Amino acid sequence: MRALVLNCTLKPSPQPSNTDALARVVADALVGHGVEVATVRLVDHHVPPGVESDLGEGDDWPAVRARILESEILVVATPTWVGHPSSVAQRALERMDAMISETDDEGRPVAYNRVAGVVVTGNEDGAHHVISEIAGGLVDIGFTIAPQAWTYWNRGPGPGPDYSATDDGHEWSASTGRAMAQNLVGVARALAGAPLGPPAS
Amino acid sequence: MRALVLNCTLKPSPQPSNTDALARVVADALVGHGVEVATVRLVDHHVPPGVESDLGEGDDWPAVRARILESEILVVATPTWVGHPSSVAQRALERMDAMISETDDEGRPVAYNRVAGVVVTGNEDGAHHVISEIAGGLVDIGFTIAPQAWTYWNRGPGPGPDYSATDDGHEWSASTGRAMAQNLVGVARALAGAPLGPPAS
Amino acid sequence: MRALVLNCTLKPSPQPSNTDALARVVADALVGHGVEVATVRLVDHHVPPGVESDLGEGDDWPAVRARILESEILVVATPTWVGHPSSVAQRALERMDAMISETDDEGRPVAYNRVAGVVVTGNEDGAHHVISEIAGGLVDIGFTIAPQAWTYWNRGPGPGPDYSATDDGHEWSASTGRAMAQNLVGVARALAGAPLGPPAS
Amino acid sequence: MRALVLNCTLKPSPQPSNTDALARVVADALVGHGVEVATVRLVDHHVPPGVESDLGEGDDWPAVRARILESEILVVATPTWVGHPSSVAQRALERMDAMISETDDEGRPVAYNRVAGVVVTGNEDGAHHVISEIAGGLVDIGFTIAPQAWTYWNRGPGPGPDYSATDDGHEWSASTGRAMAQNLVGVARALAGAPLGPPAS
Repeated sequence: MRALVLNCTLKPSPQPSNTDALARVVADALVGHGVEVATVRLVDHHVPPGVESDLGEGDDWPAVRARILESEILVVATPTWVGHPSSVAQRALERMDAMISETDDEGRPVAYNRVAGVVVTGNEDGAHHVISEIAGGLVDIGFTIAPQAWTYWNRGPGPGPDYSATDDGHEWSASTGRAMAQNLVGVARALAGAPLGPPAS
Repeated sequence: MRALVLNCTLKPSPQPSNTDALARVVADALVGHGVEVATVRLVDHHVPPGVESDLGEGDDWPAVRARILESEILVVATPTWVGHPSSVAQRALERMDAMISETDDEGRPVAYNRVAGVVVTGNEDGAHHVISEIAGGLVDIGFTIAPQAWTYWNRGPGPGPDYSATDDGHEWSASTGRAMAQNLVGVARALAGAPLGPPAS
Repeated sequence: MRALVLNCTLKPSPQPSNTDALARVVADALVGHGVEVATVRLVDHHVPPGVESDLGEGDDWPAVRARILESEILVVATPTWVGHPSSVAQRALERMDAMISETDDEGRPVAYNRVAGVVVTGNEDGAHHVISEIAGGLVDIGFTIAPQAWTYWNRGPGPGPDYSATDDGHEWSASTGRAMAQNLVGVARALAGAPLGPPAS
Repeated sequence: MRALVLNCTLKPSPQPSNTDALARVVADALVGHGVEVATVRLVDHHVPPGVESDLGEGDDWPAVRARILESEILVVATPTWVGHPSSVAQRALERMDAMISETDDEGRPVAYNRVAGVVVTGNEDGAHHVISEIAGGLVDIGFTIAPQAWTYWNRGPGPGPDYSATDDGHEWSASTGRAMAQNLVGVARALAGAPLGPPAS
């Protein structure tokens, strides 16, 4: 079983990413369940705006898309900016929008039988809405959302330190992330044993 | 396999409910898959505000909650008001909030291994957000969200006729509702074959 | 100048309301600006579901609506449940929906030239989304939203104590609430000096 | 009085933009009120990810930011993708996030006394949520939101033609856009006559 963590931080490598730090907790838990995990930091790649799967020369999205479709599990990890998923996360959803009408050999949308979850960080309130926005988009695209398949580290009231600048609350976020990993694997296995067919009409 | 449709219209019986009319399309499709379907129009019952499972004498929620837990599939059906899920739908989520800390004999949150979807109607734009809000809440509570497990009938731009006052767009909403029903059943069967265990910590 | 604080807690009086406690900070700051402030705890009144201004005998909404329209400033104060505004807050928005098509003697929607803000509490993450949901609805209804016209006290990651159970973060929430009060008054005075006319078409 | 329309389409020039087409209706109405209107199609400029006002060489944002601050009115115009504001609109909000802590000579956040509205297009449902997301972000940043300061052209149920491919509903969107323009101008004039001071603390 394979998982892809799509880190949607605004910060290009090698800047440290708080979102990466929390996503690694989930990735490690997935590895502990025997899952092979890869991570893509999307901002390091050239992903032009659009809603097609391949925008031609210089477009790095087709390679990212291929890694999504090689995986049974997708984890979208994003910081919170102005209370929303990052522009990089929204860019990923826009490019995945094309998947709604792309089908496999059996006529199923390509995201069917794949399971998704969300990891959120932020130096202020906002995680639950970010989770709903990302999960809502992924359901439209064809992913299954496992129960409680998220973790976050956002604090408040008001702005405060970043995730990596303190240990406060790390234990809750990590424990919630381990539960998330287990549920992602559990639902992915259930769907592997009894896959969905093409949608009725 | 059993499903409960929770109709969150603002209109008490016997007023006709547009939400009920579209939810029945999904219910019929579920029946076609061999599912036993019950419907509750929540506004016909006395459900006081709160976040506990039983608020004592005169509280009709415990009976509704029991029907949710007798079912493998939950369909939340709601109109769109001011762009949001109805106050009745939010009331249901608030009462279901208690389920987050209620566990079964094996230590699993009681909503685990149950699958949910959303039906939305409205005389103006707003369905996708309503779907995300409801689905986001149900994921927190412990439900699994099947892929594309929603249908809606909202139009725009600007206010227009109700669902039952026209046939426009009914075919798309019905076809999308049949696909939703199939995916709800598919994921519920997958989880029945390989149920999730209690969450790790 | 008058202001109405609409407290949308789920808890009927005399239960203590965290939302009331934070809203009082804003109310006190409004009083300091010479504003006459009234508070309504909506759950203490009988407000049946619907989208009309008067649902007949036993409907307490018409009296609440009158107090909204006697005031130049509206503060919607709500707890956060499942990441959303409370069902009581959504009920208020639904009843205010009728105001969209109600006009004054000059043909203006009745909410025009009134200014609104939002107060949010919660024992977990979610405030910014609640603010956007409430403010978005109030803009539709015809209120003007003053800049940074909100305060909140929500913490995270994960569930924690209620506002009244700790002093953590109270200072930030109070300071933000005082700025909110000043901006509400400032925009209300600006509109009093140069009121909007009826909308063009 | 000046206004800036920030067109957040995903399509670079010279591709036709549906969002531009509807935003032009609002721009024309603003001109009719004596406002000088400029438009920026953000995707034609290089705006790297980040939350600072100037990311150095090659960053086109400082010039866009200057035009925002030369204007009393800001119109954010965006398409709807996966039910959300475009990644380009979110990018603009992220860059404007820096304005929260930037103050003018009198100690006011630089966005104070500026008024904002939202224009949305889409080939499916979603406008009201996009409006709330954008307006919510702009309130945080320090803009005042005029009443009913939005228009949209989104249809449903299900995907359909683009704005420019049909005339259906254009009249409602245009009429709503003209009312929006009038309210933007009215609130901007009111604030010009009685400007907000620096926030209390």
